[in-house]
Amino acid sequence: MYGKDVSALLDKHGIRVGDTILLLAGPERYEGVLMPRVDVGDSSIIVIKRKDGYNMGIKYHAGMKIHKLAAGKGEFEFPTAGAEHSRSLDTVSLIYTGGTIGSKVDYRTGGVYMLTKPQELLYEVPELQDIANIHVSNLMSIASEDMTCTEWKKIGREVAGAFNAGSKGVMITHGTDTMHYTSAALSFMLQGLNGPVVLTGAQRSSDRGSSDAFMNLICASHIAAKSDVAEVGICMHSTPSDNTCSLIRGVKARKLHTSRRDAFRPVNGSPIATVDIGGAIDYKSKYRKASKHKSRVSLLDGFEEKTALVKFYPNSDPGIIDFYLGKGYRGIILEGTGLGHVAVSPSRSELSWISRIKDAASSGAVVGMTSQCLYGRVNSAVYRNLRMAADAGAVYCEDMMPEVAYVKLGFLLGNYGEKKAREMLPVDIAGEITKRTEYTEG
Amino acid sequence: MYGKDVSALLDKHGIRVGDTILLLAGPERYEGVLMPRVDVGDSSIIVIKRKDGYNMGIKYHAGMKIHKLAAGKGEFEFPTAGAEHSRSLDTVSLIYTGGTIGSKVDYRTGGVYMLTKPQELLYEVPELQDIANIHVSNLMSIASEDMTCTEWKKIGREVAGAFNAGSKGVMITHGTDTMHYTSAALSFMLQGLNGPVVLTGAQRSSDRGSSDAFMNLICASHIAAKSDVAEVGICMHSTPSDNTCSLIRGVKARKLHTSRRDAFRPVNGSPIATVDIGGAIDYKSKYRKASKHKSRVSLLDGFEEKTALVKFYPNSDPGIIDFYLGKGYRGIILEGTGLGHVAVSPSRSELSWISRIKDAASSGAVVGMTSQCLYGRVNSAVYRNLRMAADAGAVYCEDMMPEVAYVKLGFLLGNYGEKKAREMLPVDIAGEITKRTEYTEG
Repeated sequence: MYGKDVSALLDKHGIRVGDTILLLAGPERYEGVLMPRVDVGDSSIIVIKRKDGYNMGIKYHAGMKIHKLAAGKGEFEFPTAGAEHSRSLDTVSLIYTGGTIGSKVDYRTGGVYMLTKPQELLYEVPELQDIANIHVSNLMSIASEDMTCTEWKKIGREVAGAFNAGSKGVMITHGTDTMHYTSAALSFMLQGLNGPVVLTGAQRSSDRGSSDAFMNLICASHIAAKSDVAEVGICMHSTPSDNTCSLIRGVKARKLHTSRRDAFRPVNGSPIATVDIGGAIDYKSKYRKASKHKSRVSLLDGFEEKTALVKFYPNSDPGIIDFYLGKGYRGIILEGTGLGHVAVSPSRSELSWISRIKDAASSGAVVGMTSQCLYGRVNSAVYRNLRMAADAGAVYCEDMMPEVAYVKLGFLLGNYGEKKAREMLPVDIAGEITKRTEYTEG
Repeated sequence: MYGKDVSALLDKHGIRVGDTILLLAGPERYEGVLMPRVDVGDSSIIVIKRKDGYNMGIKYHAGMKIHKLAAGKGEFEFPTAGAEHSRSLDTVSLIYTGGTIGSKVDYRTGGVYMLTKPQELLYEVPELQDIANIHVSNLMSIASEDMTCTEWKKIGREVAGAFNAGSKGVMITHGTDTMHYTSAALSFMLQGLNGPVVLTGAQRSSDRGSSDAFMNLICASHIAAKSDVAEVGICMHSTPSDNTCSLIRGVKARKLHTSRRDAFRPVNGSPIATVDIGGAIDYKSKYRKASKHKSRVSLLDGFEEKTALVKFYPNSDPGIIDFYLGKGYRGIILEGTGLGHVAVSPSRSELSWISRIKDAASSGAVVGMTSQCLYGRVNSAVYRNLRMAADAGAVYCEDMMPEVAYVKLGFLLGNYGEKKAREMLPVDIAGEITKRTEYTEG
């Protein structure tokens, strides 16, 4: 709540939270809807929601003038989780897991702190409640770099539960750093999916003027509420501007920029759709559609943690494979160069990877080959060196990204064991392998 | 040389190598300049160079008709290395190291074999000799996945020698897989560079109809002969079409597609220039220019092989750092997520990387942090978890790609030791760090 000075000023002008106000501070004019202060930071900062949807904090000082432009609908209340305020809208579950989208700027320090209640997201973006009956589930509050397969399973169970309880679609707010690993894991783990599972997040915290959280949440909720996509996807900005968001298949998305709003790009595929803030969905490629026939969603949640992702590079020590085998690893995804190369006959033979791949394969571990190029397809048929790696037992992973192949191999080993994992690794099961790679601008 | 049947046919029509001919095989018409057969494969295959510059092999059979359209200039000869056939042209050294550009298709088997003499490149692309006096140096024939720092040094010494012997510029033909690692190594190793060093190669072997070798070699030779760039760059196709090639700074280039002609892209920067097959060079960004003042080129060729590139990902075992420390490693570049994250407080504490980073740093090893996003800049000031990694001793590597940071750290450790390496890692020395990242389409 606001401090004494601000409260007195507001009272004097008969202004209540929710009213549209104009603040004059010398030559500066700030117009917007007065927001309540959350219980953090400087209580003399007046927070308004501007017309463009962004929140702004203005430090109160004595010379400031305030005008009430229009009365609001009354006191703001944090919406209650699961309050189905409109029976005419579908129910969408919003599973909160943490990340930047759940953080706010302290207007006093400029620092970032986490929302005390994920329900505040609904309050930050009240538009969501006109799109669907949003059921907020406060599952966890974890930075995405701290996500592990333990959390993937927990999120997966929550998604299955939400669908089985009648949700039309599911949104997951998630830190962006490892969002594409989680989306890949959910793509493999969720069985019998019959509606959209949309991961979204923010590159900048949701209370900043430049935040992308606002638009990402609205676009993701349109997909979750209205699309007939029965897949896991990531919904984030398509471009640096606030024009559209892209829905990218969970096994084809990758974070390709540290800070841009449009950091997520499809690799070896096109977006499933683009969506604008008004809810217009433009489908761009084939996708798995929800059927009328309701099915129960379940989770195949085995994951072999003794699976590694190993990058080959010039001078790299192939002894790293021994390290993992010594620890009992059952799966290794190699990030080779180009079409799927590792050193075969370098000038110093101890740098050759071939005998180590053989060792791993003959120990029963599954070795998969991908490319650090990211874009394109591995192919063991072109050069002699590639055939050597294939002969040594490496499974060529088609056009799967290394990260996706890693998640898939952990999933396969955890649920089916080595033999079936080796067979299924190069076979498409969730859209992760395309027969012909579509020509995309890398 | 051609086999008996073909030779008889050619003799009968008075056709000599170099003549323009028309071959009629039923409804098919093939027109081009008759090429000599190299001493490999089926000697009854007639090879012509078509108008578009590509070679083609046509299997001779008895029903085939042949016409001489125009007489050539006489017998073809493989150009001799260093033959300075035109005193009005500058001398450019072409250092041959192997890779796809030095391979040819056997028209009989479809397989790929290596050129027996790199001089054949000049014969494949006779246009080169109108651009410069090309001095071919047959340095090595190594697949790029087998390149190590031993070869980097050898190539670097050859480059320095070529400049010191009077070359205007240097071209290096190189396999594409690790070309960007080599270009980064040369960027750091070469001291006092006063002309262009241009790496080029081919995504498809130089004798194929769809090969990019032809255009890449011509464009690279234009840069080497005519530009005033005093940097190391990679010159390959800008787009999938044969329009222009891009010259990309050696420390900002990355192979981003397994098979496309335009696989090499600038990351966190713009190309230095584009160049077309006619030799028109269009400069796109700032570069280091050659000065009139001639300087001696030397090589700073220390490289600490006990340097590792380690990728963090969900569930990844931070014990990998112990593995390297146990082997006496002095440098580790981490590929973190997003702005430079690793797990700090995951649900299972054994998956936290912070104490291992601390261990490494306090042992005196240099730990650098980069981002697996590739595009963008790491930044330790935004989130608490980032500050933890920085506090633990990780050096944040600005907008350097992980691969470039790896090569740079090996170079710094090999020449200056840990203390100076730690200081210089985040400081630009060869264009690898840009103050403000230019906005490029990822």
